[in-house]
Amino acid sequence: MNEKRVIGEKAAEFVKDGMIVGLGTGSTVFYTIAKLGQLLRDGLSLKGVATSVQTEKLARQWGIPLVGYSSEIDEIDVAIDGADEVDSEWNLIKGGGGALVREKMIAKTAKAFIVIADSSKFVGKLGNFPLPVEVVPFGYEMTRKHLAGFGCEPKLREIYDTPFKTDNGNYIFDCSFPEILEPAALERDLNLIPGVVDNGLFVKMVDTIITLDSNRNIIITR
Amino acid sequence: MNEKRVIGEKAAEFVKDGMIVGLGTGSTVFYTIAKLGQLLRDGLSLKGVATSVQTEKLARQWGIPLVGYSSEIDEIDVAIDGADEVDSEWNLIKGGGGALVREKMIAKTAKAFIVIADSSKFVGKLGNFPLPVEVVPFGYEMTRKHLAGFGCEPKLREIYDTPFKTDNGNYIFDCSFPEILEPAALERDLNLIPGVVDNGLFVKMVDTIITLDSNRNIIITR
Repeated sequence: MNEKRVIGEKAAEFVKDGMIVGLGTGSTVFYTIAKLGQLLRDGLSLKGVATSVQTEKLARQWGIPLVGYSSEIDEIDVAIDGADEVDSEWNLIKGGGGALVREKMIAKTAKAFIVIADSSKFVGKLGNFPLPVEVVPFGYEMTRKHLAGFGCEPKLREIYDTPFKTDNGNYIFDCSFPEILEPAALERDLNLIPGVVDNGLFVKMVDTIITLDSNRNIIITR
Repeated sequence: MNEKRVIGEKAAEFVKDGMIVGLGTGSTVFYTIAKLGQLLRDGLSLKGVATSVQTEKLARQWGIPLVGYSSEIDEIDVAIDGADEVDSEWNLIKGGGGALVREKMIAKTAKAFIVIADSSKFVGKLGNFPLPVEVVPFGYEMTRKHLAGFGCEPKLREIYDTPFKTDNGNYIFDCSFPEILEPAALERDLNLIPGVVDNGLFVKMVDTIITLDSNRNIIITR
Protein backbone atom coordinates (compact mmCIF):
# COMPACT_ATOMS: atom_id res chain seq x y z
CA MET A 1 0.00 0.00 0.00
CA ASN A 2 1.29 3.40 -1.00
CA GLU A 3 0.46 5.59 2.01
CA LYS A 4 1.29 8.82 0.22
CA ARG A 5 -0.96 7.95 -2.69
CA VAL A 6 -3.93 7.07 -0.48
CA ILE A 7 -3.85 10.30 1.55
CA GLY A 8 -2.76 12.45 -1.38
CA GLU A 9 -5.73 11.34 -3.47
CA LYS A 10 -8.09 11.69 -0.51
CA ALA A 11 -7.19 15.38 -0.19
CA ALA A 12 -8.46 16.01 -3.73
CA GLU A 13 -12.00 15.27 -2.50
CA PHE A 14 -11.92 18.56 -0.58
CA VAL A 15 -11.81 20.52 -3.82
CA LYS A 16 -15.27 21.63 -4.91
CA ASP A 17 -16.40 22.97 -8.27
CA GLY A 18 -15.04 26.45 -9.10
CA MET A 19 -12.45 26.56 -6.32
CA ILE A 20 -9.04 28.24 -6.42
CA VAL A 21 -6.61 25.72 -4.93
CA GLY A 22 -3.15 26.30 -3.46
CA LEU A 23 -1.02 23.41 -4.70
CA GLY A 24 1.81 22.38 -2.39
CA THR A 25 5.07 20.74 -3.31
CA GLY A 26 6.46 17.26 -2.73
CA SER A 27 5.96 13.54 -3.01
CA THR A 28 2.55 13.38 -1.29
CA VAL A 29 0.94 16.36 -3.02
CA PHE A 30 2.15 14.73 -6.23
CA TYR A 31 -0.80 12.34 -5.92
CA THR A 32 -3.25 15.12 -5.07
CA ILE A 33 -2.30 16.95 -8.24
CA ALA A 34 -2.60 13.79 -10.33
CA LYS A 35 -6.04 13.10 -8.86
CA LEU A 36 -7.16 16.68 -9.51
CA GLY A 37 -6.06 16.24 -13.12
CA GLN A 38 -8.36 13.21 -13.39
CA LEU A 39 -11.28 15.01 -11.73
CA LEU A 40 -10.77 17.91 -14.12
CA ARG A 41 -11.12 15.58 -17.09
CA ASP A 42 -14.33 14.27 -15.50
CA GLY A 43 -15.77 17.79 -15.48
CA LEU A 44 -14.64 19.44 -12.23
CA SER A 45 -13.75 23.10 -12.66
CA LEU A 46 -10.80 24.49 -10.67
CA LYS A 47 -7.80 26.78 -10.86
CA GLY A 48 -4.45 26.13 -9.18
CA VAL A 49 -1.91 28.42 -7.51
CA ALA A 50 1.52 26.76 -7.49
CA THR A 51 3.90 26.95 -4.52
CA SER A 52 6.94 26.09 -6.64
CA VAL A 53 8.24 25.82 -10.17
CA GLN A 54 8.23 22.02 -9.75
CA THR A 55 4.50 22.01 -8.93
CA GLU A 56 3.82 24.45 -11.75
CA LYS A 57 5.29 21.97 -14.23
CA LEU A 58 3.42 19.03 -12.74
CA ALA A 59 0.10 20.88 -12.78
CA ARG A 60 0.60 21.81 -16.43
CA GLN A 61 1.27 18.15 -17.30
CA TRP A 62 -2.10 17.29 -15.79
CA GLY A 63 -3.83 20.13 -17.61
CA ILE A 64 -4.68 22.08 -14.44
CA PRO A 65 -5.22 25.78 -15.29
CA LEU A 66 -2.98 27.98 -13.15
CA VAL A 67 -3.36 31.54 -11.88
CA GLY A 68 -0.63 33.70 -10.36
CA TYR A 69 -0.44 34.48 -6.66
CA SER A 70 -1.22 38.13 -7.39
CA SER A 71 -4.03 40.58 -8.01
CA GLU A 72 -5.43 38.02 -10.49
CA ILE A 73 -7.12 36.37 -7.52
CA ASP A 74 -9.06 37.65 -4.53
CA GLU A 75 -8.57 34.65 -2.33
CA ILE A 76 -7.56 30.99 -2.22
CA ASP A 77 -10.34 28.59 -1.22
CA VAL A 78 -8.12 25.78 -0.01
CA ALA A 79 -4.39 25.03 0.09
CA ILE A 80 -3.15 21.43 0.18
CA ASP A 81 0.44 20.67 1.17
CA GLY A 82 2.69 18.14 2.86
CA ALA A 83 5.01 18.67 5.82
CA ASP A 84 8.44 17.55 7.00
CA GLU A 85 7.24 17.20 10.62
CA VAL A 86 3.90 17.53 12.43
CA ASP A 87 3.70 17.80 16.22
CA SER A 88 0.85 16.85 18.55
CA GLU A 89 -0.58 20.39 18.30
CA TRP A 90 -0.42 20.38 14.50
CA ASN A 91 2.51 22.75 14.28
CA LEU A 92 4.70 21.98 11.29
CA ILE A 93 8.25 22.12 10.04
CA LYS A 94 8.34 22.74 6.31
CA GLY A 95 10.96 23.90 3.84
CA GLY A 96 12.91 20.75 3.10
CA GLY A 97 12.29 21.53 -0.56
CA GLY A 98 13.35 25.15 -0.12
CA ALA A 99 9.98 26.77 -0.93
CA LEU A 100 8.96 27.65 2.63
CA VAL A 101 8.26 31.34 2.03
CA ARG A 102 5.96 30.77 -0.93
CA GLU A 103 4.28 27.83 0.83
CA LYS A 104 3.66 29.88 3.97
CA MET A 105 2.29 32.83 1.98
CA ILE A 106 -0.21 30.62 0.17
CA ALA A 107 -1.17 28.65 3.30
CA LYS A 108 -1.78 31.91 5.17
CA THR A 109 -3.93 33.38 2.43
CA ALA A 110 -6.04 30.23 1.98
CA LYS A 111 -9.40 30.03 3.72
CA ALA A 112 -8.58 26.40 4.62
CA PHE A 113 -5.16 24.74 4.89
CA ILE A 114 -5.16 20.95 4.54
CA VAL A 115 -2.01 19.00 5.41
CA ILE A 116 -1.39 15.49 4.17
CA ALA A 117 1.20 13.61 6.16
CA ASP A 118 2.02 9.91 6.32
CA SER A 119 2.66 8.36 9.71
CA SER A 120 6.44 8.89 9.51
CA LYS A 121 5.98 12.68 9.81
CA PHE A 122 4.36 12.73 13.25
CA VAL A 123 6.50 13.59 16.28
CA GLY A 124 5.86 14.51 19.92
CA LYS A 125 8.08 17.61 19.72
CA LEU A 126 9.40 19.26 16.58
CA GLY A 127 13.10 19.44 15.90
CA ASN A 128 14.39 16.12 14.68
CA PHE A 129 14.13 17.58 11.18
CA PRO A 130 16.53 20.56 10.87
CA LEU A 131 14.53 23.80 10.68
CA PRO A 132 15.02 25.65 7.38
CA VAL A 133 15.53 29.42 7.78
CA GLU A 134 15.62 31.68 4.70
CA VAL A 135 18.05 34.62 4.98
CA VAL A 136 19.17 37.47 2.70
CA PRO A 137 22.62 36.76 1.24
CA PHE A 138 24.04 40.07 2.54
CA GLY A 139 25.80 39.43 5.85
CA TYR A 140 24.70 35.78 6.02
CA GLU A 141 27.78 34.78 8.04
CA MET A 142 26.76 37.27 10.74
CA THR A 143 23.14 36.13 10.56
CA ARG A 144 24.46 32.61 11.14
CA LYS A 145 25.91 33.79 14.47
CA HIS A 146 22.60 35.29 15.54
CA LEU A 147 20.84 32.03 14.64
CA ALA A 148 23.38 29.98 16.59
CA GLY A 149 22.55 32.21 19.59
CA PHE A 150 19.24 30.33 19.77
CA GLY A 151 21.02 27.09 20.57
CA CYS A 152 21.03 25.47 17.14
CA GLU A 153 23.68 24.45 14.63
CA PRO A 154 22.96 26.34 11.42
CA LYS A 155 24.27 24.67 8.27
CA LEU A 156 24.26 26.64 5.03
CA ARG A 157 22.35 24.61 2.43
CA GLU A 158 24.58 23.98 -0.57
CA ILE A 159 24.20 22.46 -3.98
CA TYR A 160 27.32 21.48 -5.92
CA ASP A 161 29.46 23.31 -3.34
CA THR A 162 27.74 26.67 -3.85
CA PRO A 163 24.96 28.12 -1.68
CA PHE A 164 21.48 26.90 -2.62
CA LYS A 165 19.38 29.87 -3.80
CA THR A 166 15.64 30.04 -3.17
CA ASP A 167 13.15 31.32 -5.74
CA ASN A 168 13.48 34.66 -3.90
CA GLY A 169 17.26 34.74 -4.47
CA ASN A 170 18.04 34.05 -0.80
CA TYR A 171 20.05 31.44 1.15
CA ILE A 172 18.82 28.75 3.56
CA PHE A 173 20.33 27.68 6.87
CA ASP A 174 19.19 24.24 8.04
CA CYS A 175 19.19 24.65 11.81
CA SER A 176 19.52 21.56 14.01
CA PHE A 177 17.92 22.12 17.41
CA PRO A 178 18.11 19.55 20.21
CA GLU A 179 14.31 19.97 20.52
CA ILE A 180 11.88 22.79 19.79
CA LEU A 181 9.93 23.36 22.98
CA GLU A 182 8.02 26.52 22.05
CA PRO A 183 7.38 26.70 18.31
CA ALA A 184 5.34 29.94 18.43
CA ALA A 185 8.02 31.83 20.36
CA LEU A 186 10.80 30.45 18.17
CA GLU A 187 8.98 31.31 14.93
CA ARG A 188 8.49 34.88 16.17
CA ASP A 189 12.00 35.37 17.58
CA LEU A 190 13.82 33.99 14.54
CA ASN A 191 11.83 36.33 12.29
CA LEU A 192 12.95 39.27 14.44
CA ILE A 193 16.61 38.63 13.53
CA PRO A 194 17.48 41.24 10.90
CA GLY A 195 18.43 39.36 7.74
CA VAL A 196 16.00 36.49 8.35
CA VAL A 197 13.22 36.43 5.75
CA ASP A 198 11.16 33.63 7.29
CA ASN A 199 11.51 30.18 8.84
CA GLY A 200 9.90 26.80 8.29
CA LEU A 201 7.79 26.76 11.45
CA PHE A 202 4.07 26.81 10.59
CA VAL A 203 2.32 27.48 13.90
CA LYS A 204 -1.43 27.10 14.34
CA MET A 205 -2.11 27.35 10.62
CA VAL A 206 -3.52 23.90 9.89
CA ASP A 207 -7.29 23.38 9.55
CA THR A 208 -7.40 19.71 8.54
CA ILE A 209 -4.95 16.83 8.66
CA ILE A 210 -5.23 13.72 6.53
CA THR A 211 -3.18 10.68 7.57
CA LEU A 212 -3.46 6.94 8.13
CA ASP A 213 -3.74 5.12 11.44
CA SER A 214 -1.76 1.99 12.34
CA ASN A 215 -4.39 -0.16 10.58
CA ARG A 216 -3.95 1.91 7.44
CA ASN A 217 -7.38 3.52 7.73
CA ILE A 218 -7.65 7.09 6.51
CA ILE A 219 -8.02 9.53 9.39
CA ILE A 220 -9.30 13.05 8.73
CA THR A 221 -9.10 15.41 11.67
CA ARG A 222 -10.29 19.03 11.74
CA MET B 1 23.70 76.95 13.13
CA ASN B 2 23.68 73.63 11.31
CA GLU B 3 22.08 71.24 13.82
CA LYS B 4 22.92 68.14 11.82
CA ARG B 5 26.55 69.13 11.57
CA VAL B 6 26.88 69.81 15.29
CA ILE B 7 25.45 66.47 16.42
CA GLY B 8 26.94 64.52 13.51
CA GLU B 9 30.45 65.68 14.37
CA LYS B 10 29.85 65.10 18.09
CA ALA B 11 29.13 61.42 17.44
CA ALA B 12 32.60 60.98 15.96
CA GLU B 13 34.06 61.54 19.44
CA PHE B 14 32.69 58.15 20.50
CA VAL B 15 35.04 56.39 18.11
CA LYS B 16 38.21 55.27 19.87
CA ASP B 17 41.47 54.11 18.37
CA GLY B 18 41.27 50.72 16.62
CA MET B 19 37.50 50.49 16.57
CA ILE B 20 35.31 48.89 13.90
CA VAL B 21 32.51 51.37 13.23
CA GLY B 22 29.12 50.78 11.62
CA LEU B 23 28.52 53.79 9.39
CA GLY B 24 24.88 54.75 8.93
CA THR B 25 23.32 56.52 5.98
CA GLY B 26 21.85 60.00 5.54
CA SER B 27 22.28 63.73 5.92
CA THR B 28 23.31 63.71 9.61
CA VAL B 29 25.75 60.79 9.47
CA PHE B 30 27.25 62.62 6.50
CA TYR B 31 28.95 64.94 9.03
CA THR B 32 30.05 62.05 11.25
CA ILE B 33 31.81 60.43 8.31
CA ALA B 34 33.46 63.69 7.30
CA LYS B 35 34.68 64.22 10.86
CA LEU B 36 36.00 60.65 11.07
CA GLY B 37 37.91 61.33 7.86
CA GLN B 38 39.58 64.32 9.55
CA LEU B 39 40.37 62.36 12.72
CA LEU B 40 41.86 59.63 10.56
CA ARG B 41 44.23 62.13 8.96
CA ASP B 42 45.13 63.27 12.48
CA GLY B 43 46.21 59.72 13.35
CA LEU B 44 43.11 57.92 14.61
CA SER B 45 42.95 54.30 13.48
CA LEU B 46 39.54 52.84 12.54
CA LYS B 47 37.71 50.62 10.07
CA GLY B 48 34.21 51.25 8.76
CA VAL B 49 31.33 48.92 7.87
CA ALA B 50 28.96 50.66 5.47
CA THR B 51 25.15 50.38 5.69
CA SER B 52 24.65 51.43 2.07
CA VAL B 53 26.37 51.92 -1.25
CA GLN B 54 25.96 55.69 -0.75
CA THR B 55 27.86 55.56 2.55
CA GLU B 56 30.48 53.28 1.03
CA LYS B 57 31.26 55.93 -1.59
CA LEU B 58 31.33 58.73 0.96
CA ALA B 59 33.66 56.81 3.27
CA ARG B 60 36.03 56.12 0.39
CA GLN B 61 36.10 59.81 -0.47
CA TRP B 62 37.25 60.52 3.09
CA GLY B 63 39.84 57.76 2.99
CA ILE B 64 38.13 55.61 5.63
CA PRO B 65 39.21 51.95 5.24
CA LEU B 66 36.20 49.66 4.89
CA VAL B 67 35.61 46.03 5.84
CA GLY B 68 32.72 43.86 4.71
CA TYR B 69 29.87 42.86 7.02
CA SER B 70 31.04 39.26 6.90
CA SER B 71 33.44 36.78 8.42
CA GLU B 72 36.16 39.43 7.93
CA ILE B 73 35.05 40.87 11.29
CA ASP B 74 34.18 39.38 14.64
CA GLU B 75 32.15 42.26 15.94
CA ILE B 76 31.29 45.93 15.46
CA ASP B 77 32.36 48.20 18.33
CA VAL B 78 29.91 50.98 17.66
CA ALA B 79 27.30 51.82 15.02
CA ILE B 80 26.29 55.44 14.36
CA ASP B 81 23.14 56.22 12.42
CA GLY B 82 20.31 58.72 12.05
CA ALA B 83 16.56 58.08 12.30
CA ASP B 84 13.35 59.21 10.61
CA GLU B 85 11.48 59.31 13.94
CA VAL B 86 12.40 58.80 17.61
CA ASP B 87 9.73 58.30 20.28
CA SER B 88 9.91 59.05 24.01
CA GLU B 89 11.15 55.49 24.70
CA TRP B 90 13.85 55.70 22.01
CA ASN B 91 12.11 53.43 19.59
CA LEU B 92 12.82 54.44 16.00
CA ILE B 93 11.35 54.46 12.54
CA LYS B 94 14.08 54.06 9.93
CA GLY B 95 14.16 53.13 6.27
CA GLY B 96 13.31 56.37 4.50
CA GLY B 97 16.46 55.78 2.47
CA GLY B 98 15.53 52.15 1.75
CA ALA B 99 18.42 50.50 3.63
CA LEU B 100 16.50 49.38 6.72
CA VAL B 101 17.51 45.71 6.63
CA ARG B 102 21.23 46.39 6.37
CA GLU B 103 20.99 49.19 8.96
CA LYS B 104 19.15 46.94 11.41
CA MET B 105 21.62 44.09 10.91
CA ILE B 106 24.57 46.33 11.67
CA ALA B 107 22.86 48.09 14.59
CA LYS B 108 21.98 44.72 16.12
CA THR B 109 25.49 43.35 15.78
CA ALA B 110 27.15 46.49 17.21
CA LYS B 111 28.13 46.52 20.88
CA ALA B 112 26.81 50.10 21.08
CA PHE B 113 24.26 51.81 18.83
CA ILE B 114 24.41 55.63 18.80
CA VAL B 115 21.59 57.59 17.17
CA ILE B 116 22.00 61.18 16.08
CA ALA B 117 18.73 63.02 15.61
CA ASP B 118 17.97 66.72 15.32
CA SER B 119 14.99 68.08 17.23
CA SER B 120 12.61 67.66 14.29
CA LYS B 121 12.79 63.86 14.59
CA PHE B 122 11.36 63.54 18.10
CA VAL B 123 7.69 62.56 18.49
CA GLY B 124 5.46 61.43 21.35
CA LYS B 125 4.18 58.41 19.41
CA LEU B 126 5.68 56.96 16.23
CA GLY B 127 3.69 56.92 13.02
CA ASN B 128 3.65 60.34 11.45
CA PHE B 129 6.45 59.07 9.21
CA PRO B 130 5.14 56.18 7.06
CA LEU B 131 6.70 52.91 8.22
CA PRO B 132 8.86 51.25 5.54
CA VAL B 133 8.33 47.49 5.22
CA GLU B 134 10.60 45.41 2.96
CA VAL B 135 8.83 42.52 1.17
CA VAL B 136 9.84 39.84 -1.34
CA PRO B 137 8.57 40.71 -4.83
CA PHE B 138 6.75 37.37 -5.20
CA GLY B 139 3.09 37.90 -4.27
CA TYR B 140 3.62 41.47 -3.12
CA GLU B 141 0.04 42.44 -3.97
CA MET B 142 -1.21 39.78 -1.56
CA THR B 143 1.32 40.83 1.07
CA ARG B 144 -0.09 44.33 0.69
CA LYS B 145 -3.50 43.01 1.78
CA HIS B 146 -2.02 41.36 4.87
CA LEU B 147 -0.25 44.62 5.76
CA ALA B 148 -3.46 46.62 5.31
CA GLY B 149 -5.06 44.22 7.80
CA PHE B 150 -3.00 45.98 10.48
CA GLY B 151 -4.90 49.23 9.88
CA CYS B 152 -2.40 51.03 7.67
CA GLU B 153 -2.36 52.26 4.09
CA PRO B 154 0.57 50.53 2.35
CA LYS B 155 1.94 52.43 -0.64
CA LEU B 156 4.41 50.65 -2.92
CA ARG B 157 7.56 52.77 -3.14
CA GLU B 158 8.28 53.62 -6.77
CA ILE B 159 11.00 55.33 -8.68
CA TYR B 160 10.30 56.51 -12.22
CA ASP B 161 7.01 54.58 -12.18
CA THR B 162 8.62 51.21 -11.44
CA PRO B 163 8.93 49.56 -8.01
CA PHE B 164 11.94 50.75 -6.01
CA LYS B 165 14.31 47.79 -5.44
CA THR B 166 16.36 47.49 -2.25
CA ASP B 167 19.96 46.31 -2.21
CA ASN B 168 18.46 42.88 -1.42
CA GLY B 169 16.35 42.93 -4.58
CA ASN B 170 13.09 43.42 -2.66
CA TYR B 171 10.23 45.96 -2.68
CA ILE B 172 9.21 48.48 0.00
CA PHE B 173 5.73 49.39 1.16
CA ASP B 174 5.54 52.74 3.00
CA CYS B 175 2.76 52.11 5.49
CA SER B 176 0.83 55.07 6.90
CA PHE B 177 -0.59 54.27 10.32
CA PRO B 178 -2.87 56.69 12.21
CA GLU B 179 -0.53 56.15 15.21
CA ILE B 180 1.72 53.31 16.35
CA LEU B 181 0.68 52.51 19.90
CA GLU B 182 2.76 49.37 20.50
CA PRO B 183 5.96 49.38 18.45
CA ALA B 184 7.31 46.09 19.87
CA ALA B 185 4.14 44.17 19.07
CA LEU B 186 3.85 45.74 15.63
CA GLU B 187 7.49 45.02 14.73
CA ARG B 188 7.00 41.37 15.72
CA ASP B 189 3.61 40.89 14.07
CA LEU B 190 4.59 42.49 10.76
CA ASN B 191 7.65 40.24 10.58
CA LEU B 192 5.38 37.20 11.03
CA ILE B 193 3.58 37.99 7.75
CA PRO B 194 5.02 35.56 5.19
CA GLY B 195 6.66 37.63 2.47
CA VAL B 196 7.77 40.41 4.85
CA VAL B 197 11.57 40.54 5.17
CA ASP B 198 11.73 43.20 7.88
CA ASN B 199 10.27 46.56 8.85
CA GLY B 200 11.66 49.94 9.86
CA LEU B 201 10.75 49.71 13.57
CA PHE B 202 13.89 49.63 15.72
CA VAL B 203 12.64 48.73 19.20
CA LYS B 204 14.83 48.98 22.30
CA MET B 205 18.04 48.94 20.28
CA VAL B 206 19.44 52.41 21.03
CA ASP B 207 22.21 52.87 23.61
CA THR B 208 22.93 56.59 23.23
CA ILE B 209 21.10 59.50 21.65
CA ILE B 210 22.79 62.72 20.61
CA THR B 211 20.57 65.73 19.95
CA LEU B 212 20.22 69.45 20.75
CA ASP B 213 17.92 71.07 23.31
CA SER B 214 15.85 74.20 22.64
CA ASN B 215 18.84 76.39 23.51
CA ARG B 216 20.94 74.52 20.95
CA ASN B 217 23.06 72.81 23.58
CA ILE B 218 24.24 69.31 22.75
CA ILE B 219 22.43 66.69 24.83
CA ILE B 220 23.89 63.19 25.13
CA THR B 221 21.63 60.65 26.81
CA ARG B 222 22.48 57.03 27.54
